[in-house]
Amino acid sequence: MNLPSEELIKLIKEATIKVLSEKEKVLIPVGVSNRHVHLNREDLDILFGIGYSLNKLKDLKQPGQYATKETVTIKGSKGEIEHVRILGPLRKETQVEISLTDGFKLGLNPPIRESGKLENSSPITIIGPVGSIKKTYGAIVAYRHIHMPEYVANILKLKDKDIVSVNVDGIREAILGNVLVRVSKDYELEMHLDLDEANALNIKNNDTVTIVDKVIK
Amino acid sequence: MNLPSEELIKLIKEATIKVLSEKEKVLIPVGVSNRHVHLNREDLDILFGIGYSLNKLKDLKQPGQYATKETVTIKGSKGEIEHVRILGPLRKETQVEISLTDGFKLGLNPPIRESGKLENSSPITIIGPVGSIKKTYGAIVAYRHIHMPEYVANILKLKDKDIVSVNVDGIREAILGNVLVRVSKDYELEMHLDLDEANALNIKNNDTVTIVDKVIK
Repeated sequence: MNLPSEELIKLIKEATIKVLSEKEKVLIPVGVSNRHVHLNREDLDILFGIGYSLNKLKDLKQPGQYATKETVTIKGSKGEIEHVRILGPLRKETQVEISLTDGFKLGLNPPIRESGKLENSSPITIIGPVGSIKKTYGAIVAYRHIHMPEYVANILKLKDKDIVSVNVDGIREAILGNVLVRVSKDYELEMHLDLDEANALNIKNNDTVTIVDKVIK
Repeated sequence: MNLPSEELIKLIKEATIKVLSEKEKVLIPVGVSNRHVHLNREDLDILFGIGYSLNKLKDLKQPGQYATKETVTIKGSKGEIEHVRILGPLRKETQVEISLTDGFKLGLNPPIRESGKLENSSPITIIGPVGSIKKTYGAIVAYRHIHMPEYVANILKLKDKDIVSVNVDGIREAILGNVLVRVSKDYELEMHLDLDEANALNIKNNDTVTIVDKVIK
């Protein structure tokens, strides 16, 4: 074929939209989140020393986000968990994301929350190689959510903060309600689940789910 | 009131059937199963000594089933878990029920199976106070299931081994497919979920679920 590039792009766009406009055809890859910590500058200084720089271990799927080589211990009233990965870059507020299983182990009762909504979240102690911090709040269980690029949201007629249901296939098949859609031109398409959810559904990183209308007869 | 007992029983029966005949009205209590072990006579002899008798800790909801005071350690290629409860009474075959999370910790890849279906299930080592056994098979993750008394099954027009879908309410609401129905006149109505499932769904012992038709539009 010797198509002019504009015509070729138009054909690809049309084909893409045709496929994507059928909701069931949009396969959303799953990213399974193990427990992790986001730190602000002040807390990194306390835990690792003033002016410390985090060292990238590997990029995550969401652009600009990465796992670092650094880990901390997190501690509650009933127990502690070592080797909890720090994710970069630094944030305005320190946030510890755990599963409900972790919560029982630590003796916490964390709320199931959207990232960044830390009001009245669980107190938790973070222990680093240089110092430790007793946070009065900051531990949450992540509300299940989808990172969605704008062009996909446009096609699916969804907007930021919409709530959808998602179909999971397999021996532990399910339809999950209350899935939060976060839309940004900077996102890669990805549904985030924690380890409890992934194991309960028998799904792994990069397995795919689809958005469905949940109907109970 | 001074009703003759037969008439009273008839009224109660009619009222019960009227309520139960609407599927959504049958509230099924959830029983959350932590990892546990069922033993046969031979393996109990090896682990605790010849002729040992298990000591009841408390009755479980299913008639005749009970938690015992005895625990064992279970071990796979990558790790071990201590204090795993033995359930009584003894069975024909030893069976270890764990979650997928436990499987990863132990280094096992157990199949998701109906209780008693142990063919090609995961090998596992069981360690007791007197001896230990390297089982060549016996570890499974339980297939989610409902214990249903016959009279409820009759009303819902369900039979043993039917597969249904179940609705779970709450912040982690879901419809779970592939739920196995086990019917017996000896059962108490109860849906069994493992800890991964309970935490993924944010439900606890005695929370209730309902049977629904799963419809995807």
